[in-house]
Amino acid sequence: MTDALDLARDLIRCPSVTPAEAGALDCLEAALKPLGFACHRLTFSEEGTPDVENLYARYGAEGPVFCFAGHVDVVPVGDAAAWRHDPFGAEIEDGQLYGRGATDMKTAIACMVEAAERVIADGFTGSIAFLITGDEEGPAINGTTKVLDWMAERGETIDACLVGEPTNPVTLGEMAKIGRRGSFSGRLVVNGTQGHIAYPHLADNPLPRLVKMLDRIAAIDLDDGNEHFQPSNLEITTIDVGNTASNVIPASGQAFFNVRYNTLQNAAGLEAKIRAACDSVGGDYTLTVRNSGDPFLTEPGDLTANLHDAILAELSVEPDLSTTGGTSDARFIKNACPVVEFGLVSQTMHKVDERCAIADIPKLTAIYERVLRGFFAKG
Amino acid sequence: MTDALDLARDLIRCPSVTPAEAGALDCLEAALKPLGFACHRLTFSEEGTPDVENLYARYGAEGPVFCFAGHVDVVPVGDAAAWRHDPFGAEIEDGQLYGRGATDMKTAIACMVEAAERVIADGFTGSIAFLITGDEEGPAINGTTKVLDWMAERGETIDACLVGEPTNPVTLGEMAKIGRRGSFSGRLVVNGTQGHIAYPHLADNPLPRLVKMLDRIAAIDLDDGNEHFQPSNLEITTIDVGNTASNVIPASGQAFFNVRYNTLQNAAGLEAKIRAACDSVGGDYTLTVRNSGDPFLTEPGDLTANLHDAILAELSVEPDLSTTGGTSDARFIKNACPVVEFGLVSQTMHKVDERCAIADIPKLTAIYERVLRGFFAKG
Repeated sequence: MTDALDLARDLIRCPSVTPAEAGALDCLEAALKPLGFACHRLTFSEEGTPDVENLYARYGAEGPVFCFAGHVDVVPVGDAAAWRHDPFGAEIEDGQLYGRGATDMKTAIACMVEAAERVIADGFTGSIAFLITGDEEGPAINGTTKVLDWMAERGETIDACLVGEPTNPVTLGEMAKIGRRGSFSGRLVVNGTQGHIAYPHLADNPLPRLVKMLDRIAAIDLDDGNEHFQPSNLEITTIDVGNTASNVIPASGQAFFNVRYNTLQNAAGLEAKIRAACDSVGGDYTLTVRNSGDPFLTEPGDLTANLHDAILAELSVEPDLSTTGGTSDARFIKNACPVVEFGLVSQTMHKVDERCAIADIPKLTAIYERVLRGFFAKG
Repeated sequence: MTDALDLARDLIRCPSVTPAEAGALDCLEAALKPLGFACHRLTFSEEGTPDVENLYARYGAEGPVFCFAGHVDVVPVGDAAAWRHDPFGAEIEDGQLYGRGATDMKTAIACMVEAAERVIADGFTGSIAFLITGDEEGPAINGTTKVLDWMAERGETIDACLVGEPTNPVTLGEMAKIGRRGSFSGRLVVNGTQGHIAYPHLADNPLPRLVKMLDRIAAIDLDDGNEHFQPSNLEITTIDVGNTASNVIPASGQAFFNVRYNTLQNAAGLEAKIRAACDSVGGDYTLTVRNSGDPFLTEPGDLTANLHDAILAELSVEPDLSTTGGTSDARFIKNACPVVEFGLVSQTMHKVDERCAIADIPKLTAIYERVLRGFFAKG
């Protein structure tokens, strides 16, 4: 029998910092194969990005298909000397499991495996799938999107999906995610003419135009949010000129910004608003934009109710069905089927001494088991 | 007899890039001593700056004292391979003398020496002084200011001064300088709280405040100039945040600016206006300012008329008595006596292939000679 804690420790001991597999998918395959999962190791590559290994595993031949999704890659350790324990040691102390990936999100994957094993043991009609990537913390180019393409080519469909990202700010059960904001970013370059500061009539300083454009961009009133989403928000992340000569008017200046936006906005509309702010100032500028994820909402329905009820039943807590926070691979999966996210407590993710409470592991496993049973009971 | 061209070539052959003396002052002393000048080599030092050698030379024991001022240090060569001739070779081609310092301003110093020699040969009542620094193109800390302090301690006074900076934009005689704008610079740092871009309520982005402050600083209406000065002018020279993470709200951002200002402004007033612009936005910021030179004007009078008349007589050109352009050591000398500036054509100064027209050398020498004779005729 799979023990989620043991499997989590085995996974954490694989130093799978993106894009390294480092044995993590081997370890997961070794747990899934004995349960009857057909495992597909999928390596994708693209020029300019590192090759990444992924895993698609399926138990059962008929529908409906419930899919667990997640990633075995982790962010870098940072200052290893600052850790209380070896970041890849999976040490236990005072009821906490320490290690990179303990909350984000190897332990949740281990809970999914134990939950699947229990449901398989009792028998059910349908299939359980695992969509596990090694490229979530990296560029996310050779990961979930390409697995979904591969599935589409094979006619492999899924009917509902749960992503095991750490969704709880402080206490297990307080928050699940039923959507995410979109992420739109841009680079603004304002051009002028370089010159000596004592002869400004021979130069054209781009910086007064740059700051005026940025002031107007920062002042764009996007929206007040809605029932499911907080207001869309634009942040200027950096402004850089790099002129070290105090007597020189620079030739150009640039700024980067990012918008986290809800379903009241779309990428084309955001670009139009930002261009209008720049055009209201005028002059020579170039604006380059990139939409790295549309916002989405899994409308309240069977899947969200199933997750809500499972959390309530196990923990006697009403989870907030939220759309806050950063992006995840759910932004890709939502094109395939309804998707929700629920995992461990996020407090230490990406930090030194990343850890999770040992006590939360059987609770999360039980919630995942209830979600599976609820899904197949309806199906 | 001194020949200005020969002396200029000797001086150019000394690679006296600030703070190196490289034999340039030795060369000048060797020209002045035979004429009867008492030479004082003055080496000044200050913690954190390189030692610099300077020269004060005086012919005559009684007043009035006319002082020629200038610098033998030069700016770096830049891309030596891009030069047509060795930057320290003093080569002549097509009527041009090539080399670093050919216009700024070794050749003018050579013309001063030849002019002084001619006047001394005829006899006059009064003294001629040379105040020559090796720290004009550098920090200007161990140069002219400290020579002036040394002179004040000895009770050594001067009654009028001509600085040999290249003042003519295109053609010899078109422009002399009778004052300069002041230079005031500042560094603005706006502080906030770093955070993840998806959780803006936990962070405080300093950049919207920074760009609003800079927009208001750039919009400050200083003045329209006056009879002798162009309008005061503020330029933002750089803005730098250096945040390379597109999902991070930065903790702070900074900008530098510089004001070239006329006698309608002063440093305290400029600082007050800029602080008022920052305060109108509010929030945590630090503003550090530095006034590196007050504006000054040598009011039209004997000295300016003398220079004007000398140029008109030699070249049949009416010089513009201007206050435009960058700073020079005249900003220090104006505290000692009336000061004007006139030298060669500035077009190639600080550039690759710095050069001056050979034909301008006897003309400039003749103008300097007329200025000396005019001064002593009045005195």
